[in-house]
Amino acid sequence: MLGTEGVLDSIQTSAEEEILALEHSALEKWAQGDTTGYVEIGRDDVTWFDFAEGEQLRLEGLAAFREYLEPLAGQIPPHKYDMLNPKLQLYGDAAILTFHWKGTLPDGSQLPRWKATSVYHRKDGKWRQVHGHWSMVQNG
Amino acid sequence: MLGTEGVLDSIQTSAEEEILALEHSALEKWAQGDTTGYVEIGRDDVTWFDFAEGEQLRLEGLAAFREYLEPLAGQIPPHKYDMLNPKLQLYGDAAILTFHWKGTLPDGSQLPRWKATSVYHRKDGKWRQVHGHWSMVQNG
Repeated sequence: MLGTEGVLDSIQTSAEEEILALEHSALEKWAQGDTTGYVEIGRDDVTWFDFAEGEQLRLEGLAAFREYLEPLAGQIPPHKYDMLNPKLQLYGDAAILTFHWKGTLPDGSQLPRWKATSVYHRKDGKWRQVHGHWSMVQNG
Repeated sequence: MLGTEGVLDSIQTSAEEEILALEHSALEKWAQGDTTGYVEIGRDDVTWFDFAEGEQLRLEGLAAFREYLEPLAGQIPPHKYDMLNPKLQLYGDAAILTFHWKGTLPDGSQLPRWKATSVYHRKDGKWRQVHGHWSMVQNG
């Protein structure tokens, strides 16, 4: 039988697995030039700080997010990615996933690295993304 | 008497006021070159994507955060700031505050602009910051 700590560990593990699977589903599509993955894992009220240079708005709501992502589809070169150093902070029905992202083109060259914050919320048993913030790692 | 919507509005307003007051307390200290404000509003398990160029780690825990911030104190020029377009997403005991930040030096010149994500959690009735992610607005 699990003690309290065991139960908490088990809740954390289950949330972590579910959330990482969602994030990877979006990132894997992205790596194939398909931008629909993040729309699929997003809640209606999702907000997003875009990561395209020159675009500075906070996107609000799934419809605006979809509209923003659609024209990007053709601009993403196919690549492999690594999610480095993922960490999940779990607070009941809310969770904060943070990680570093590394992308590699077929010729072996590296894409710019990113830091990512991805906030999830669980409603009716389903985790969905409610906020995303990506920022480029500076080579300063 | 408030209906359900009224009660929800009132909960949202109260959380918003408390969280905005915390964030402003940290930003106001920062504007005076005092970096202790963010340590004061942080929970023990706070994580932070730093915003100093060249530093790329995710800081984990209040002690590491304090150690990171201390030497920055002397490097912040006194300034006035504006929190632009703040938005709070409330999910029970978790809340996501997002805003744009604008800073102005005494001579009127502008500091670089930032986008900020600040995630809060309420425990024992107290809201505390559990994650921060700042990224510079690109002039692309």
